[in-house]
Amino acid sequence: MAVERLVVVGGDAAGMSAASQARRLKGPAELEITAFERGRFTSYSACGIPYWIGGGVTDRDDLIARTPEEHRARGIDLRTRTEVLELDLAGNRVRARDLDSGAESWTGFDKLVLATGARPVRPRMPGIGAHGVHGVQTLDDGQRLMDTLERAGGRRAVVVGAGYIGVEMAEALLHRGFEVTVLHRDEQPMSTLDPDMGGLVNTAMNRMGIRTVAGAEVAEVLDDGAGRARAVRTASGDEYAADVVVLGIGVEPRTGLARAAGLPLGTSGGLLTDLSMRVRGYGHIWAGGDCVEVLDLVAGRHRHVPLGTHANKHGQVIGSGVGGGYATFPGVVGTAVSKVCDLEIARTGLRESDAREAGLQFVTATVASTTAAGYYPGAARMTVKMLAERRTGRLLGVQIVGGAGSAKRVDVAAVALTAGMTVEQVVALDLGYAPPFSPVWDPVLVAARKAVAAVRSAGV
Amino acid sequence: MAVERLVVVGGDAAGMSAASQARRLKGPAELEITAFERGRFTSYSACGIPYWIGGGVTDRDDLIARTPEEHRARGIDLRTRTEVLELDLAGNRVRARDLDSGAESWTGFDKLVLATGARPVRPRMPGIGAHGVHGVQTLDDGQRLMDTLERAGGRRAVVVGAGYIGVEMAEALLHRGFEVTVLHRDEQPMSTLDPDMGGLVNTAMNRMGIRTVAGAEVAEVLDDGAGRARAVRTASGDEYAADVVVLGIGVEPRTGLARAAGLPLGTSGGLLTDLSMRVRGYGHIWAGGDCVEVLDLVAGRHRHVPLGTHANKHGQVIGSGVGGGYATFPGVVGTAVSKVCDLEIARTGLRESDAREAGLQFVTATVASTTAAGYYPGAARMTVKMLAERRTGRLLGVQIVGGAGSAKRVDVAAVALTAGMTVEQVVALDLGYAPPFSPVWDPVLVAARKAVAAVRSAGV
Repeated sequence: MAVERLVVVGGDAAGMSAASQARRLKGPAELEITAFERGRFTSYSACGIPYWIGGGVTDRDDLIARTPEEHRARGIDLRTRTEVLELDLAGNRVRARDLDSGAESWTGFDKLVLATGARPVRPRMPGIGAHGVHGVQTLDDGQRLMDTLERAGGRRAVVVGAGYIGVEMAEALLHRGFEVTVLHRDEQPMSTLDPDMGGLVNTAMNRMGIRTVAGAEVAEVLDDGAGRARAVRTASGDEYAADVVVLGIGVEPRTGLARAAGLPLGTSGGLLTDLSMRVRGYGHIWAGGDCVEVLDLVAGRHRHVPLGTHANKHGQVIGSGVGGGYATFPGVVGTAVSKVCDLEIARTGLRESDAREAGLQFVTATVASTTAAGYYPGAARMTVKMLAERRTGRLLGVQIVGGAGSAKRVDVAAVALTAGMTVEQVVALDLGYAPPFSPVWDPVLVAARKAVAAVRSAGV
Repeated sequence: MAVERLVVVGGDAAGMSAASQARRLKGPAELEITAFERGRFTSYSACGIPYWIGGGVTDRDDLIARTPEEHRARGIDLRTRTEVLELDLAGNRVRARDLDSGAESWTGFDKLVLATGARPVRPRMPGIGAHGVHGVQTLDDGQRLMDTLERAGGRRAVVVGAGYIGVEMAEALLHRGFEVTVLHRDEQPMSTLDPDMGGLVNTAMNRMGIRTVAGAEVAEVLDDGAGRARAVRTASGDEYAADVVVLGIGVEPRTGLARAAGLPLGTSGGLLTDLSMRVRGYGHIWAGGDCVEVLDLVAGRHRHVPLGTHANKHGQVIGSGVGGGYATFPGVVGTAVSKVCDLEIARTGLRESDAREAGLQFVTATVASTTAAGYYPGAARMTVKMLAERRTGRLLGVQIVGGAGSAKRVDVAAVALTAGMTVEQVVALDLGYAPPFSPVWDPVLVAARKAVAAVRSAGV
């Protein structure tokens, strides 16, 4: 039997999980694996970058799960600092350039894995190229920001955007002693939450000493005349002094290669795959991680949900498929957790705007409770908002904002959403209770009880 | 319309939740509510007693959610220090004695709620009545123990039993500066877990400075000649010096009244009810809380599961029924969480012994992981054990032992059990991920992945 050739484009979570899992299933005599990575690092936790920047994680290399050398020792021909420039699907080959030598070459494949990730959205505006303006997507990006911070004379930081990356970077910069201003376009930070819940985040951020500016449209980065950022100007003409500017306005799938090759892309520009993570219409090409769209099981449509945990699962599924096994990634319900200092933020399922967009009628219930019995030392405030379908009582979504111990409780709702439970079924769930862990009525259950009442009083 | 008369026997969680909910639905012109409570306190958190004893909760009254006066102000005729001695079901009346005056009287009812709770098992042995030997079930019990501890000259405590109450009291006594020895009969502490997981608890307890003695059959409490406990002797003849002895060997339903009245009891001696918490065969008698058995939805049989969270739900359901509404308590999956110092302990569903008893063939998977990304500061060890049915892959149970942030993760499994998910479905769950909250592969998902592999390799 001829040796099969696998080419992997992208050396982070999805790509290298796929390569590793394929290698576990097939040895070098059966499968030759070549992986291309533009950067210097592989298999690192991009999600961990803010904690390294903030100083909680002291060693950058702690973020690296497996180095290029470790992958090579496992029989993967890993080429770092090598960028794939073209997919030739007719010829089943890829063209790549060694970024140091500039040399280009073609590599043939029998099977192909695309794991090209995402890139931070960079607004087109004057000054965006100034020194001191940073996106934070790859570990190389993180290293560049770290170099700037260590050199930076000043102490003022502007974060553009107040999504997960924005609030996590705000915390990181606060920990490093910066005066932090977060400029964001929406009514409240964390637009992955409804504005009422985002408002709780806003209040908490302000209390921590982070300045937030809502409705701010960033128009220009002003430089000091020597090419270094000195301020950010908004469309309304306000100027915010900044020694460093961090872009946290989201990411978009990096699918230029796939687009040029004619592979199917969704409305967000992410690759479209089947449940086994094969690119639609292609039996020998897989895609996973931040460059694909995933099925939202609650909304019933594909979305771009760039998260390391999904990327790792994709890699596992792809590697199984490449190796001749079978596994699937059925989709997501939209669970995400984050924190900014002591405040934990979580969501799953649909927000009000999502539900409206999906044409659903719904009720909401919001309760203020605590993470432990009220009398237990350290019990922290915790607010839970729940959405349920008006006629059926079907759970549609949950958002949580609260102190330590709040965020992971959203997982209960994630499972209930997956199972298609009604809020009445949620009330009856047997969740763990002891005073250090929960009030005698778990806050999620209290929200469900209130949602049941709302469904009943809404009638049919 | 005549005023209806409701009598409630027992003034803690289930009884007073029922009374309060009934009062919310029906005013005094429609429903007269009389509640009898033997003790001085109502609506308190019995589960909170160890934390008050341990000093974390400084004020006993913080454990009280609603005082007798507050209940009376809401139109409930609450009689504390009044014990119901007899249920006359033919005459629809109860006979009660005022424990202070000794006066007895009959009270008629149209509807009756039994919420008589549980009593600590007290082994029959010489010396059990000595001063310094305490059960901890009611707040009055707790107050008596507190009085002993405040008087106690010595500094040695023996805890008999290593279930939830035993380990929580061991922690409490350790916090109060006692040398603590836990004597227990089983192979490992926490027999609500499998012995391999109980072994992790044992190691951690020893590391905290708590001495544990397995296989210890307590035979006698030795006194100092003046009626005060001075040591505990085991069947094997060992003596353990003790200035205070705390009994934590479990509780049994307090159903003497119900038994005498001929009401239906289950194998554990708890009252049997339908899903609306009506005593089987009686349309006008409800029972809830620690005096009933509940349906175990995984094992498919009734069990005695005395937990405040269930008691509160029962009360809610009963009060709705009494007030003319409709609500149900479908059953439990056996979720319980606890902690001893920094160690968190959780379980849901079936242990190996439960699964064998139920005649099920199963596989197990145990994984050691962490509560946060390994590189995140404060990430704690966390071990997850999962049981799945051998042929179907149906999730049967999960046990977790680990550091801060471990216990409530068991709720994910509780929901999955309720939904009847397979471990394959569990692997695909969209659980919250960010480095402060979880490794990129959530430990519960890793256990499920390993369980899937075990199911597949077990074949059919």
